[in-house]
Amino acid sequence: MPEFLRLLPPDEAKSTFLDAISTASQPLIDVVPTEEALGRILATPITAGDPLPPFARSTVDGYAVRAEDTFGASQSLPSYLTLAGEIHMGTQAELLIEPTQAVLIHTGGMIPDGANAVVMIEDTQKFGEDQIEVLKPVAQGENVLQKGEDVKKGEIVLDAGTKLRPQEIGGLMALGITEVQVVRRPHVGIISTGDEVIPPWEEQRLGQIRDVNSYTLSALVTRLGGTPVVRGIVPDQYDDLLTIAKKAHAEDDVIVITAGSSVSTHDRTVDVVGALGQPGVLVHGITIRPGKPTILAVADGVPIIGLPGNPVSALVIAGLFLTPVISKLLGMEGKILSPQIPAVLSVNIASETGREDYVPVSITKVEGGFSAEPIFGRSNLIFTLVRADGLIRIPPESTGLSKGTEVEVLLF
Amino acid sequence: MPEFLRLLPPDEAKSTFLDAISTASQPLIDVVPTEEALGRILATPITAGDPLPPFARSTVDGYAVRAEDTFGASQSLPSYLTLAGEIHMGTQAELLIEPTQAVLIHTGGMIPDGANAVVMIEDTQKFGEDQIEVLKPVAQGENVLQKGEDVKKGEIVLDAGTKLRPQEIGGLMALGITEVQVVRRPHVGIISTGDEVIPPWEEQRLGQIRDVNSYTLSALVTRLGGTPVVRGIVPDQYDDLLTIAKKAHAEDDVIVITAGSSVSTHDRTVDVVGALGQPGVLVHGITIRPGKPTILAVADGVPIIGLPGNPVSALVIAGLFLTPVISKLLGMEGKILSPQIPAVLSVNIASETGREDYVPVSITKVEGGFSAEPIFGRSNLIFTLVRADGLIRIPPESTGLSKGTEVEVLLF
Repeated sequence: MPEFLRLLPPDEAKSTFLDAISTASQPLIDVVPTEEALGRILATPITAGDPLPPFARSTVDGYAVRAEDTFGASQSLPSYLTLAGEIHMGTQAELLIEPTQAVLIHTGGMIPDGANAVVMIEDTQKFGEDQIEVLKPVAQGENVLQKGEDVKKGEIVLDAGTKLRPQEIGGLMALGITEVQVVRRPHVGIISTGDEVIPPWEEQRLGQIRDVNSYTLSALVTRLGGTPVVRGIVPDQYDDLLTIAKKAHAEDDVIVITAGSSVSTHDRTVDVVGALGQPGVLVHGITIRPGKPTILAVADGVPIIGLPGNPVSALVIAGLFLTPVISKLLGMEGKILSPQIPAVLSVNIASETGREDYVPVSITKVEGGFSAEPIFGRSNLIFTLVRADGLIRIPPESTGLSKGTEVEVLLF
Repeated sequence: MPEFLRLLPPDEAKSTFLDAISTASQPLIDVVPTEEALGRILATPITAGDPLPPFARSTVDGYAVRAEDTFGASQSLPSYLTLAGEIHMGTQAELLIEPTQAVLIHTGGMIPDGANAVVMIEDTQKFGEDQIEVLKPVAQGENVLQKGEDVKKGEIVLDAGTKLRPQEIGGLMALGITEVQVVRRPHVGIISTGDEVIPPWEEQRLGQIRDVNSYTLSALVTRLGGTPVVRGIVPDQYDDLLTIAKKAHAEDDVIVITAGSSVSTHDRTVDVVGALGQPGVLVHGITIRPGKPTILAVADGVPIIGLPGNPVSALVIAGLFLTPVISKLLGMEGKILSPQIPAVLSVNIASETGREDYVPVSITKVEGGFSAEPIFGRSNLIFTLVRADGLIRIPPESTGLSKGTEVEVLLF
């Protein structure tokens, strides 16, 4: 068996690793147009320069009035008001409402000075050329959206660290903020190793296999909000791996190395990672399946993950350990909710105690929810994950899960 | 009150609308490099040109042997085999294993002819210069990943309509498929109307408000896998709106119009949509809050959604009705699982029967799960949605939900 320093449980491995990653007090910043900032993370808080709405607005079609002129109005005893004009959309209300006057106003129109409420059009009746009957009283402020009711001038509307969704983009635009400072995407250097590994576009000879990990991991990094930097395929030689790892160390914010699967290439990865900086290798082996021979390290501030070469293990482990690293570098530690779906297990699954298992499952809609069916098969078949919708976790204290157990499926 | 033809329940409105949208038997196609295809939808099925793995491989470090030569081996009575060489990674195994021979092999190495199993290195011992002792028998096929075990040559590995995740990208690369045909992103024309609406970068005068809907909806379209086409802000004039709507109708796959909020601009939208083609307006008013004055139409094959002008209603309704349209145009009808999280309601919420309510909520992690707290506030405040993590649905037959009810939160 490979010599592991000491196998750590996944949670302890993760906290050891994350605690050793210090984030800069000021993140690196990109300035981008707000309309292109979907999914980015604000680097600085946003303060409203204007109130929102910037003026009191009607929320209905009707007549702007002084509420007190409608008190006591009813179907049988209407209030009579004099029609003093119309508020046109998009123009300043320059009228001043005098007692017993009303002006026609549309939804979103600016409430004129003197008015403090809007009577809905269906609660009125025209009376002659220039009068209306109000059939129902309105309270002060009724059917009015007050100036600053959504946002006050000077209010902090979005904190640094906010992930921008469609509504934040819209809120920024509503305030006239057309450009934002966002956290730069972490650059993740991805190194594949193995004498047998070739680029997918090269002709494959017997004994060779095409690189999968560079591409699954790039896609994962992109999805997590990082920028993948594919560093290529390195032969199983200490010097070659050290050269490319040093380049990645100098240029990237995080490094992911998919070690070859054999013990010797795994050990070589440990040696190279150890040579990159301090404190070096922190975790060398985890009580998890798949992914036991995982390496977690920090070298002079750069987090490094040494993944097993097998594509299934590499992707599962990257999902578990790279996700929180990128979150932390984005200033979003613990703030990203992973999508998950509750489901009922369709068969029994066995597991060993003392080891956390992640089992790929496919989910199907059933009466009242979802059913999760494990995708059995060897852990090194990439198409096992293609058939899967997500993973279920079997906790280390468990000897397995029975058919019918409610599980949370971590969606891919 | 505005005249609605007939208010439809949301489900009926949705099915009426979707049933009227015919999708082309052949979707429009983009050809993209596989490594840039994350999140895209395959337009054609993918067939494996090679088996995967392309040759039988060892899954461990050890010795390739004939299983029959190890039968009966034990610690006390090992089998003695002659070391006939080493399989180097990435090279074709040109050796032929003769009876009682063994060759050194690494994880992922190619199984040589004649061998049918691999003994793990830890179950062996060196004996002299050129012999090994095998201390444990192996069965035929043990520690061997057979040629084609993951994928057989000629097998359909991915169906048309598959959304490409990291593992699919990796699977394609493993097969040497570096370019794929994907469904073209539907182009969604977005038209904002209103004399009071100005672009966010223009100076705002009293009575004017900045365009929000063009940007919330663009971001939503991008997130759903479409391409937003911002058609700009149109004044509240029939001719102006018809001109721009015709242009969008000619060039885009879907049109979204945010009507002004007043009855007159709403009616104008209905007239313009009706003039674009057949069958025209299908749904005019839905028993839903927010979003009652929603218009759903199809004009000569182009789906059109008339949204309320208020940004909260517009975004909620677009989430409910634009999502399935884009899914359908992508060939993914009903196949997209919306992320949702179960939570427990923190307070009572009242609702009217006969109407489906969508209430924005914020969620907090609590012991054993999540708590959902409604964000109260007027439905026309964009920052209401900024404070929310998702929506909960109150079904039409309900008069409200009590504190402590388990709800599903549809995450934004």
